[in-house]
Amino acid sequence: MGGSGAQIARASIGATDVRGPVYDDRIDDRRAAMVRIAGERRDGLCLGPCSRGMLSRMQNLAASIDHTLLRPDALRADIERLCEEALQHRFASVCVNGCWVEVARHCLEDSPVRVATVVGFPLGAMETDAKRYETEVAVDCGAQEIDMVLNVAWLKAGEDRRLWRELRDVVEAAQDRPVKVIIETCLLTDEEKRRVCPVIKEAGAKYVKTSTGFGKGGATEADVRLLRECVGPEFGVKAAGGIRDLATARILLEAGATRLGTSSGVKIVAELSEGG
Amino acid sequence: MGGSGAQIARASIGATDVRGPVYDDRIDDRRAAMVRIAGERRDGLCLGPCSRGMLSRMQNLAASIDHTLLRPDALRADIERLCEEALQHRFASVCVNGCWVEVARHCLEDSPVRVATVVGFPLGAMETDAKRYETEVAVDCGAQEIDMVLNVAWLKAGEDRRLWRELRDVVEAAQDRPVKVIIETCLLTDEEKRRVCPVIKEAGAKYVKTSTGFGKGGATEADVRLLRECVGPEFGVKAAGGIRDLATARILLEAGATRLGTSSGVKIVAELSEGG
Repeated sequence: MGGSGAQIARASIGATDVRGPVYDDRIDDRRAAMVRIAGERRDGLCLGPCSRGMLSRMQNLAASIDHTLLRPDALRADIERLCEEALQHRFASVCVNGCWVEVARHCLEDSPVRVATVVGFPLGAMETDAKRYETEVAVDCGAQEIDMVLNVAWLKAGEDRRLWRELRDVVEAAQDRPVKVIIETCLLTDEEKRRVCPVIKEAGAKYVKTSTGFGKGGATEADVRLLRECVGPEFGVKAAGGIRDLATARILLEAGATRLGTSSGVKIVAELSEGG
Repeated sequence: MGGSGAQIARASIGATDVRGPVYDDRIDDRRAAMVRIAGERRDGLCLGPCSRGMLSRMQNLAASIDHTLLRPDALRADIERLCEEALQHRFASVCVNGCWVEVARHCLEDSPVRVATVVGFPLGAMETDAKRYETEVAVDCGAQEIDMVLNVAWLKAGEDRRLWRELRDVVEAAQDRPVKVIIETCLLTDEEKRRVCPVIKEAGAKYVKTSTGFGKGGATEADVRLLRECVGPEFGVKAAGGIRDLATARILLEAGATRLGTSSGVKIVAELSEGG
């Protein structure tokens, strides 16, 4: 189900026939330059002389970062800058709103930096079918990772089967692309956080993610530890929300996070390169 | 375009085959009682003895209120209470997240209170096709009014044609149901607020709406005056965000608002009935 049917539907509807220009020669030039630089410089991160150990630490840190920009008033130039920074620092991905996926994908073509986008974001209270379709649109536009928001109300109401069905719909629509499920920990009890982990795993998602960054609270060390304990050692845990410095990043990685969602990635790797 | 094609697509995909129970006998009983009370009591609002003039003022105020609950952790019982309050006070509508439209519609069947829902909410940065589809899903679920969020970045970039196309897609998907376009005034300059008004009118929407209530600012008297001046006397202006008392409601109505989006509707009409 899912993919092909909806793709046919979208093509037949033809609602995307009027779009702004997605391609821009200036981006092509800049992108080519950045990809070249990233390829040529084996360090990819270390701007001055630095030790092999430092280099490895920086690469590991950068490779855990989803370089994120989800402000609704972010402009094309902001998205391009985000992609350039991600290339320069070899972040895991850029995470952008749906309307920017095509632009980001074009900027990052032929690079190891992936394009992630959000679904049902940030409230998670859309109809299931709308989340499923939003995922398909994202895939069609070139998204390689999907950060979706769980329906918090259903979790609180104990409707685990319904939660699973919605997650499963999105996982199927994502067609093998990793799905990260945002549970918005600041709204949940510890019992709810524990109960949702097996549902997320069984639905075929690849990560549990703490927060949208738009709620009243972000990632905490305690929540990351709890989630890591619940999902076991082999599953992804993404910490997001309020990660603004190296110290916080380290605490969350040590607590068990495998990805960090932050808009402060450049600052964080700079702190490390300065010996932080 | 739009409607029929996508409905066929949705039916053929069959992603909504597993849903939680939408109907609930308790709701039926309560709803019947509320509709009866609202029908029998011609005042519908005034709980004690009150003058004809007071009654008229209360009815006018209540009829301007979209009784709103968009918190992601709102539960079914909260939505049912919202609907009961809307029936009791004869508010214009309830405004709920997409996953609650069917529940609200069932609670409010055979009543004059309408069901409004949100699209692309609250960031407005989804792909156009996802907004269009979300609107169709809302219509299928029984939504009677659509509060959609504009793509703020496109407005800032001067991409008015693209804005118009997206609004037009949503207006068409809404199939004659009124579309209110949320421009998130706190992110805009006065020039941008002025520029977007004719685009909204020309796309066939019925209201310009100030705010999502999730941004850094809500409705202001100055913004409502500016929007009323731009759209002329015959177009809808909805003020939303931060309307928590009768004084604020009055100021915004006097400035030109024809609808108020608030979660404090019950408190506001109570203030008026107490002679506020």
